[in-house]
Formats: sequence, structure tokens, C-alpha cells
Amino acid sequence: MPVQLDVRTGSKRELRDITSLVKEVISASGVQQGVCHIFVPHTTAGLTLNENWDPDVKGDLIRALEALVPDVRFRHGEGNSPAHLLSTIAGASETVLVRDGELILGTWQGIYLAEFDGPRSRRVLVKVVPDPA
Amino acid sequence: MPVQLDVRTGSKRELRDITSLVKEVISASGVQQGVCHIFVPHTTAGLTLNENWDPDVKGDLIRALEALVPDVRFRHGEGNSPAHLLSTIAGASETVLVRDGELILGTWQGIYLAEFDGPRSRRVLVKVVPDPA
Amino acid sequence: MPVQLDVRTGSKRELRDITSLVKEVISASGVQQGVCHIFVPHTTAGLTLNENWDPDVKGDLIRALEALVPDVRFRHGEGNSPAHLLSTIAGASETVLVRDGELILGTWQGIYLAEFDGPRSRRVLVKVVPDPA
Repeated sequence: MPVQLDVRTGSKRELRDITSLVKEVISASGVQQGVCHIFVPHTTAGLTLNENWDPDVKGDLIRALEALVPDVRFRHGEGNSPAHLLSTIAGASETVLVRDGELILGTWQGIYLAEFDGPRSRRVLVKVVPDPA
Repeated sequence: MPVQLDVRTGSKRELRDITSLVKEVISASGVQQGVCHIFVPHTTAGLTLNENWDPDVKGDLIRALEALVPDVRFRHGEGNSPAHLLSTIAGASETVLVRDGELILGTWQGIYLAEFDGPRSRRVLVKVVPDPA
Repeated sequence: MPVQLDVRTGSKRELRDITSLVKEVISASGVQQGVCHIFVPHTTAGLTLNENWDPDVKGDLIRALEALVPDVRFRHGEGNSPAHLLSTIAGASETVLVRDGELILGTWQGIYLAEFDGPRSRRVLVKVVPDPA
């Protein structure tokens, strides 16, 4: 069964580091060798992996993603079409690898919930799957 | 074995909702707990999850993606380099989760084949994998 | 266990075709039916699938991705924020399918390590998972 993480974002657009939460799910699963699927069931948020060392990278990423949104006439009545676009750019699913009970990430890599239309209560689903015997 | 969905797109660029087709594959598989991998074997189309409630979102997304394509001199003789770029932006693979025989999606979320160089006959591969015993 | 591919990139930005390397890992695994997860543990590189027939497509993609980077004031001291942005756009993980011992790809499709801040020594992790019995 997937484990649901509940994340409360604090601003309209932000990258929220969920690496430690994902590591806890992997640890609690007891899985030693396998994979971990992460899924965001939202359409104005997304998932991305990027640097979690220098906090300026997060700010740069958010500013650059905002600036990417082209100046077209959006029709969607809610007015959050830019957030839908950024959700498609970031993507809703990522698969990371588990070796010897540990999440494999690069030295500078963290897992981020990308909020594009907050602040909101968001859910992230994490499913750890052991290798078949 | 993956199941192949055959999708005929109707215009140059469109988001074609394949959620119900994916649900049928999951249902037919009989898998109760597992994951579902979706893969597009094309280089001028992609996969994305986004809102499937207000149809204006689809139009907004397509217009915004088209407007994203920068004005650089493309050399590829077929003239469809913008479609290749959008295929890379959307991505070719997504993994969604299956719980109690049902696809887990957010309330507003649908799965789209993103056509960027149609109309064409497209294939989408869907593979449902049960959790190991 | 994931297999690590070591890839030495040769320029600042390039798409390096790793399709044959991934096929070798699948072949060596002996897996007949399953999936193959590919993961890049870097934050200034990414993974993408796109055409590997006409070499002009690679050049067009790189030029278009570079041109996508908006002209905002980046604060990250290393000066490579554009590479972090492109890493998020391309993505760090892809899942491809294995049928009868072979990687399933479209006719024109190849798997690329996308280098955005090279030249560097890069790693790509490849994990082939057989279907549960």
C-alpha cells in the first residue's frame, strides 16, 4: 500500500524538500533492495529532484520556472493555468532506487514537492516495492 | 506483457485523455496492489498528467507549450523540431499506483497522450505490475 | 542491485546516447519480462528519450533548451542555475519496458543522458526488475 505524506506548503510557489520524509517511509518499509515510486496526485503541483545544498538553487529554480510561463491568453476560469503548465513541466511521478535499505541519491540531490499554486495542503504518495524473490 | 493502446489523434497538437483506457487495462489485469507503467514509444509526442475537469485547461496547456518553443534556427530537415522539444519537456514515461484494483489519481487528474506533431496513429504501452508476493 | 554506467561527457551541453549501454545491462541481467529503471544522480544533468536517427535533432534540442532558460537574475554562487533548471525540465528518472529480453523503444527513440554543465564524469544507474512470478 502506498504511504501518504501530508505536506502543508507556505507560499504560492515553493520547492518543499521531502527527502527525509521519503527516507522514513523506506526505512519503515524494511525493504532492502527495490525501488520507491513517488506520486503527486495534484495538477497544480509537481515533483522534481534537484540540489538541496545551496538554498539559493531553490529560489533560482522557482524564479526561472515562473519566468518560463509564456504570455498567452489563458481561458481557464480559475486563473491558475500557469500552475497547470508548471505541473506538466515538473511531472507528477518519479522512481528512485533503494539499495541495502537506503535511498540512492546523488551527493547534492534532494526530492522536492514543487508547489505552484499554494499555499495548500498537498499529498504525496510513496510506494516502496521490494525486488521479486 | 505490456498492453498496446492505439490512439488516433485528430489535430497537430492536442492532449488526448487516455485515463479510461488505462483504467480498463488495470481492470483487465486483475492486479489488486501494484503499479502501472505507461510509456509512449514516440519522439514527437509525450505523456502528462493534468486536470481533466475543465476542458479549457487542455487548450491553455497546448497554447502555453507551443508558446514555450523558442525562436531558434532548427536544422532537422523534417521541420518538426518543436515537437521533439515538447516531447522532451512532457516526457515519455509515467508510473502510477494501483490500490485495491483501482488506479490512484487525484480528484482532478487525468492521463494524457500529448500529441505534438499530429494527426497521427500513436501507440501507448501500459504495463501493470503486481506487488511481489 | 543497480548497475552503474560511467559516462564522460565532452562539452558543456550535449545529449549523449546511452541506449546501447542500457541494452547491455538488460541483456546481462537475463531478465525476459520486466521493467528497467534509469536514474541520474546529478542535479545539472538529466535523462530524456528522443530521436536518435537524425543527429540534427540532438543539436536542435540542445539549442532550444538553452534558449528556454529565461533571463532572470540567478543568485546561486556557482553560476550554473540554468543547468539546474534544465535538469528539472528533463527529469532524473525514466522507466522503460522489457519484453522477451529486449528493451522496447520506438523506431526512432533513443535514451539520452542530457549534460547541461559539462564536460564532467557522470553516472547513470540502471536497474532491471523482472516481473514477479
